[in-house]
Amino acid sequence: MKIAIINGPNLNLTGKREPEIYGTQSFDQLYQELELHFPKVNFSYFQSNVEGELIDELQQKGFSYDGIILNAGAYTHTSIALADTIKAIKTPVIEVHLSNLLSRESLRHLSLTGVYCAGTIMGLGMRGYVLAVTYFVQQQKNVS
Amino acid sequence: MKIAIINGPNLNLTGKREPEIYGTQSFDQLYQELELHFPKVNFSYFQSNVEGELIDELQQKGFSYDGIILNAGAYTHTSIALADTIKAIKTPVIEVHLSNLLSRESLRHLSLTGVYCAGTIMGLGMRGYVLAVTYFVQQQKNVS
Amino acid sequence: MKIAIINGPNLNLTGKREPEIYGTQSFDQLYQELELHFPKVNFSYFQSNVEGELIDELQQKGFSYDGIILNAGAYTHTSIALADTIKAIKTPVIEVHLSNLLSRESLRHLSLTGVYCAGTIMGLGMRGYVLAVTYFVQQQKNVS
Amino acid sequence: MKIAIINGPNLNLTGKREPEIYGTQSFDQLYQELELHFPKVNFSYFQSNVEGELIDELQQKGFSYDGIILNAGAYTHTSIALADTIKAIKTPVIEVHLSNLLSRESLRHLSLTGVYCAGTIMGLGMRGYVLAVTYFVQQQKNVS
Amino acid sequence: MKIAIINGPNLNLTGKREPEIYGTQSFDQLYQELELHFPKVNFSYFQSNVEGELIDELQQKGFSYDGIILNAGAYTHTSIALADTIKAIKTPVIEVHLSNLLSRESLRHLSLTGVYCAGTIMGLGMRGYVLAVTYFVQQQKNVS
Amino acid sequence: MKIAIINGPNLNLTGKREPEIYGTQSFDQLYQELELHFPKVNFSYFQSNVEGELIDELQQKGFSYDGIILNAGAYTHTSIALADTIKAIKTPVIEVHLSNLLSRESLRHLSLTGVYCAGTIMGLGMRGYVLAVTYFVQQQKNVS
Amino acid sequence: MKIAIINGPNLNLTGKREPEIYGTQSFDQLYQELELHFPKVNFSYFQSNVEGELIDELQQKGFSYDGIILNAGAYTHTSIALADTIKAIKTPVIEVHLSNLLSRESLRHLSLTGVYCAGTIMGLGMRGYVLAVTYFVQQQKNVS
Amino acid sequence: MKIAIINGPNLNLTGKREPEIYGTQSFDQLYQELELHFPKVNFSYFQSNVEGELIDELQQKGFSYDGIILNAGAYTHTSIALADTIKAIKTPVIEVHLSNLLSRESLRHLSLTGVYCAGTIMGLGMRGYVLAVTYFVQQQKNVS
Amino acid sequence: MKIAIINGPNLNLTGKREPEIYGTQSFDQLYQELELHFPKVNFSYFQSNVEGELIDELQQKGFSYDGIILNAGAYTHTSIALADTIKAIKTPVIEVHLSNLLSRESLRHLSLTGVYCAGTIMGLGMRGYVLAVTYFVQQQKNVS
Amino acid sequence: MKIAIINGPNLNLTGKREPEIYGTQSFDQLYQELELHFPKVNFSYFQSNVEGELIDELQQKGFSYDGIILNAGAYTHTSIALADTIKAIKTPVIEVHLSNLLSRESLRHLSLTGVYCAGTIMGLGMRGYVLAVTYFVQQQKNVS
Amino acid sequence: MKIAIINGPNLNLTGKREPEIYGTQSFDQLYQELELHFPKVNFSYFQSNVEGELIDELQQKGFSYDGIILNAGAYTHTSIALADTIKAIKTPVIEVHLSNLLSRESLRHLSLTGVYCAGTIMGLGMRGYVLAVTYFVQQQKNVS
Amino acid sequence: MKIAIINGPNLNLTGKREPEIYGTQSFDQLYQELELHFPKVNFSYFQSNVEGELIDELQQKGFSYDGIILNAGAYTHTSIALADTIKAIKTPVIEVHLSNLLSRESLRHLSLTGVYCAGTIMGLGMRGYVLAVTYFVQQQKNVS
Repeated sequence: MKIAIINGPNLNLTGKREPEIYGTQSFDQLYQELELHFPKVNFSYFQSNVEGELIDELQQKGFSYDGIILNAGAYTHTSIALADTIKAIKTPVIEVHLSNLLSRESLRHLSLTGVYCAGTIMGLGMRGYVLAVTYFVQQQKNVS
Repeated sequence: MKIAIINGPNLNLTGKREPEIYGTQSFDQLYQELELHFPKVNFSYFQSNVEGELIDELQQKGFSYDGIILNAGAYTHTSIALADTIKAIKTPVIEVHLSNLLSRESLRHLSLTGVYCAGTIMGLGMRGYVLAVTYFVQQQKNVS
Repeated sequence: MKIAIINGPNLNLTGKREPEIYGTQSFDQLYQELELHFPKVNFSYFQSNVEGELIDELQQKGFSYDGIILNAGAYTHTSIALADTIKAIKTPVIEVHLSNLLSRESLRHLSLTGVYCAGTIMGLGMRGYVLAVTYFVQQQKNVS
Repeated sequence: MKIAIINGPNLNLTGKREPEIYGTQSFDQLYQELELHFPKVNFSYFQSNVEGELIDELQQKGFSYDGIILNAGAYTHTSIALADTIKAIKTPVIEVHLSNLLSRESLRHLSLTGVYCAGTIMGLGMRGYVLAVTYFVQQQKNVS
Repeated sequence: MKIAIINGPNLNLTGKREPEIYGTQSFDQLYQELELHFPKVNFSYFQSNVEGELIDELQQKGFSYDGIILNAGAYTHTSIALADTIKAIKTPVIEVHLSNLLSRESLRHLSLTGVYCAGTIMGLGMRGYVLAVTYFVQQQKNVS
Repeated sequence: MKIAIINGPNLNLTGKREPEIYGTQSFDQLYQELELHFPKVNFSYFQSNVEGELIDELQQKGFSYDGIILNAGAYTHTSIALADTIKAIKTPVIEVHLSNLLSRESLRHLSLTGVYCAGTIMGLGMRGYVLAVTYFVQQQKNVS
Repeated sequence: MKIAIINGPNLNLTGKREPEIYGTQSFDQLYQELELHFPKVNFSYFQSNVEGELIDELQQKGFSYDGIILNAGAYTHTSIALADTIKAIKTPVIEVHLSNLLSRESLRHLSLTGVYCAGTIMGLGMRGYVLAVTYFVQQQKNVS
Repeated sequence: MKIAIINGPNLNLTGKREPEIYGTQSFDQLYQELELHFPKVNFSYFQSNVEGELIDELQQKGFSYDGIILNAGAYTHTSIALADTIKAIKTPVIEVHLSNLLSRESLRHLSLTGVYCAGTIMGLGMRGYVLAVTYFVQQQKNVS
Repeated sequence: MKIAIINGPNLNLTGKREPEIYGTQSFDQLYQELELHFPKVNFSYFQSNVEGELIDELQQKGFSYDGIILNAGAYTHTSIALADTIKAIKTPVIEVHLSNLLSRESLRHLSLTGVYCAGTIMGLGMRGYVLAVTYFVQQQKNVS
Repeated sequence: MKIAIINGPNLNLTGKREPEIYGTQSFDQLYQELELHFPKVNFSYFQSNVEGELIDELQQKGFSYDGIILNAGAYTHTSIALADTIKAIKTPVIEVHLSNLLSRESLRHLSLTGVYCAGTIMGLGMRGYVLAVTYFVQQQKNVS
Repeated sequence: MKIAIINGPNLNLTGKREPEIYGTQSFDQLYQELELHFPKVNFSYFQSNVEGELIDELQQKGFSYDGIILNAGAYTHTSIALADTIKAIKTPVIEVHLSNLLSRESLRHLSLTGVYCAGTIMGLGMRGYVLAVTYFVQQQKNVS
Repeated sequence: MKIAIINGPNLNLTGKREPEIYGTQSFDQLYQELELHFPKVNFSYFQSNVEGELIDELQQKGFSYDGIILNAGAYTHTSIALADTIKAIKTPVIEVHLSNLLSRESLRHLSLTGVYCAGTIMGLGMRGYVLAVTYFVQQQKNVS
């Protein structure tokens, strides 16, 4: 089973940026934990601050992977282009956010990208990524 | 560990109501599955179509339970009173929605109740409840 | 043929409340008139000031009755939950309002519940209920 | 008793235009049915695609007829001028719409013309016209 | 000197329509008064309920007359087409309204047609027409 | 003299809920103080989290009591139904809020229920209830 | 007959300020012209840049003068206080603007002060003041 | 092949009206050019300032012609009725505008009529009509 | 104890201005009553129609008085500057309004100045001032 | 003659992405057809998912090419930066969209980039590109 | 060289008012520093809480001074009258704000007065005034 | 002392693009002037049209430089992602704009990026950059 984790702008600073919002764990620590707990899953990791490179990556993974976990960062709220890509590809996408967007500024309340995602998990920190992987793994079991 | 599952208006129809949106599984089936998979968790179940009875239930469980999973149904979008209760109680609440609210009518896009929840899981059907329980159980392990 | 009449908040005051808007006839007088004029119809009457009890009643009648006449009072403009119930049940619903909502305050201009109703009759006072019954009776004749 | 039926833009296409919204019955069939069922009523029929000609007709009938049934079509949502005419004339007007405007696009949700009408019947197809005539006939009985 | 007076929808009812808003004087009385007081002015009078006929009239008078006094009635608030005509013609236009639009419903507060007029006189009843003629006559004197 | 105090959702938690906003005094303490200071007043107390039960209570007290003090909690901002009841009953109602709603989130700035109240006292904590009783008592003196 | 002319902020610069909008005539020239043409009228003139001083002046003249001509300048669009004064006094007020506000920026399109004025004349430059005086004089003749 | 060209309000002034926006070519010149370049196409031309007459014309041509080129002028932005007609007829419609509406006032930015058109060409002056004819002719070739 | 009463624009007309809204009592009568009933309180009274003079007065009293009762009249809804002063001074301010602003025009529904006040009393006429003084006096007793 | 075709995000998927909206033809097929039909035109092709790379390309071509055909995809609705580039360069730009944006979601109705384009062609599929080239070629003929 | 510094409402409290927003330096200290560092500049200082007095001062200095530094305080967001004055005078104005308005409440985000200023400096505390003087001095050097 | 100057989209065209808005000086000339006048400052220069590359650069400089001067061009108004980066880094940022954004189109009036900047300088052309450097240099002096 192949799952792609795609992170958007400023998520490369996680761990040292505003820990009261985003926590102190870095993504490297998360990736190690994921590989440990899901040894049968083939993970790919990608981060970029460039909207168009996130689109490129979604297009590349979106026709062959079994699941994509996307945290588009601030592009969540502004990128119709990313939303279009999610709609155009075949792989189901789960949107994850570290913080609870509803308790922050109003321009973070709505998600353009989430419209075409299978679902959303937010506010549960790095645990959100683990739950999303859990979901994809369980879905596959149910199907097969 | 004690976890309360609280469902709001019309969720008692789940399984026979608009299955293309809400799926065909009933909550009774879900509850059986939960008890099977989480034998150490003490579950309580509650459903009401009355906004004020949901508030009563949240007040009753919200100072002694370890976690609450709330699907407030349509009150999600209209009830400041429910949001106030979530803010006032001590137990952390995870909001769950069966469908992806972002891909439905615009008056379902925003959640008043979600503002004070620990997090939100939506669009993943009955699986959302299971993931929320998983989160509470894993959090407790990390703490203890 | 079974027709349910369901009235929402403050309609129990009709006849003594603001007669220049709602008229002087009470619902008891209307019900007597209906039974007199439609002797073959089996009527049920229900009134509640509680939003959730209106939902309960709609769920109870909405899978076996031939028609429902709903005047949700002020919940017409605020209750997505009631609208969801109307969408979920099988029985067709006609929304009736005693006064012409368009000539009152702007927050009464739009109906959330009317979206999923078969139709709306408003501004014609108690006559609106009689016309709605007439409609259901004539429809049945056409079908049978 | 004299009742005028006034239809606005595109209603001359009814029967061959989008039957899933407007039904398959033509107005000619309706008029025949009305004359058959209400032999004592003197009907006048008028249809125009021109907003100003609808105003002319309302002005002409509005001081001598006992009732006017108006389906202003799309002018319902845009014509303050028609609303002014309804307010200026003496004859009571009932607004009728074939479809349930609330379940269509948002620019069809509000009615400018309905503000000054006695009432509105919508969503009940051609039956709405019959109910409106029934109302006028019953009102006259009550008065005389 | 040639001055055209062009009146829009429902102004043909002035004198018998809502006298508390529009007064009891008819336009025929006004026209007689104007001809008496301004014997050197060549007046033309036109009224229509049809938006397009008002456009026709403005186009016909708008390249040869010295002044146009326009009361577009309710089209004032909805007709971009009329505004375009006023912009396209050469003759200066003064917009006149019998009532003070600012003290009526909010949809009457703004004027689309007034944007391209030389000026506006409102709230002064039939006197507004007389003042507008006075203005055109005085302007001509200043120029010549 | 009879005065009813009616409290809405979550006000049963006052004293232990967010004391920085709502203070540390419970309503029981307030009621004791009121009875001590106004021995000639006959008080009734009611609290419910259910919107419709607040309507029931207002209807029951609203035709025989001399004054009603209403703190509708979060329903203040969402309940047109409660506002309708206040308009329909005879007894004057004073709206009281413990906190200054204007200095909180924007969805708490406007009051639907306050529209039909005699007046509003807010931001003065439990003192607001005492002042409202003082007002009713003084008004009665002036009249008698 | 006593008529007060009250000018608001920046109108003391008229004649040297943006002549393409406000013209080149100063108010001193206008006042001389008015006294010449209306020798029987007793004029008072007042200009201030201070909102409260305009209110003071309106209060002082508003119970004894026969007419007030008010050009509140930019306060037209922002001063509810001035509007309140116009509503509170007895003397009828005509609002005059030199330029056509509708063809300028959108924040100049609506007038708060105009709501309670008898009427408005705008876009006709200094001629607007002359027409307003003409109106008051003619009204007096009709009455006496 | 039959193509109808239908022009709305004020387009009869093209060539002499605001040439910096609409150019100096008249429609007569365009029609001559079209007949010269597309000798096999049977053209019909229609212009009216009356909204309802444009609806009449669309209804008349819309079930037998191969293509309609519509420039509804200012009705583009205000006429739901015209949009309804375009939706109701069978012939595909291409909307053409001489100027680029996006670079003009905001009330010209959106097109109600364009919603149901096959496509839109704007900003290319009279060339837009020629391109629209070219499109219809090429489409026919592809089909046959 | 020192309490300042500061009244804004048009409140100097109270008693003779619109008595159906503001009552017939003048402020002079109120002040006499206050001094009679609260002999130990040192009152200062101030009224101005000038926004900036109200700011001056608030600054002057706001660092030495024990309480300020402010009725900013129409500046309540438009003056961010006054709100800033209330925030900047030390003395607590209670906002009082004679009428219930919520039942008047929508531009009177929100208070900018109230945001930084300790509380608001409105709709209770001149009694509101008395209640505000009562509050300050009782608070002082509780503290001392 | 030199014409640049610049395509934005997700247009590289055309032909395999949502064919019911975007058709089944790929851009490679279009480019072959263009070179065949316009042998004298020197075409350049560019596609990127990165907003800034589209800006780079527009800057590079925009001072030497004779025409640019831009389909900015979803950036059409969000990129002020692209609009600025179109305004800054010398070469005229025609905006092309495969689908009719007006019949899709409301956030696709307005074009920021189109404001500074010479014109727009939309809804005509790949034919839109051919028509745009036709326009540039014909314009050049007219000039030379 | 003559430079006027004009400060609006509540800026006379700077130094003792909310130091976490406005700092602890008083304007007297700033003025001393300015005179020390720019000995060749002739400074004038003015502060008022009265909007109209700020207008008076701008009119008085605005035709003879070389530069004006304006901090209109809260009038920045509400005063069209002040904006008009800035537009009407000849001297260039630089708007200065001590705090970064964008990081405060939304009603402070937009500046009406800034529209007609040469430029804006905000968020840099008292340094903003020094930079504005620096700008005027350097501009003069470049010109002379 | 190290100061980074970061310019966003289209600023590489400054000097040849719309000189009436942006002036005729190029950034190369500015950089030479800066190095000449501030010989002790270590400058870095960066320009990109790609939003994500501006984020990369801010992240790279934002933890070691003493000051950043950012002109994000059109991304100022649309990029929440850039705003997030400014919030996440340690180095203070001053936002500079060549033109006065308030006197341009409304979509340029608000700055998303400015919310987290130390301050903003706009409308003063290339001088804005010089003033920003001056500010950083003077701040350092005050600290050391």
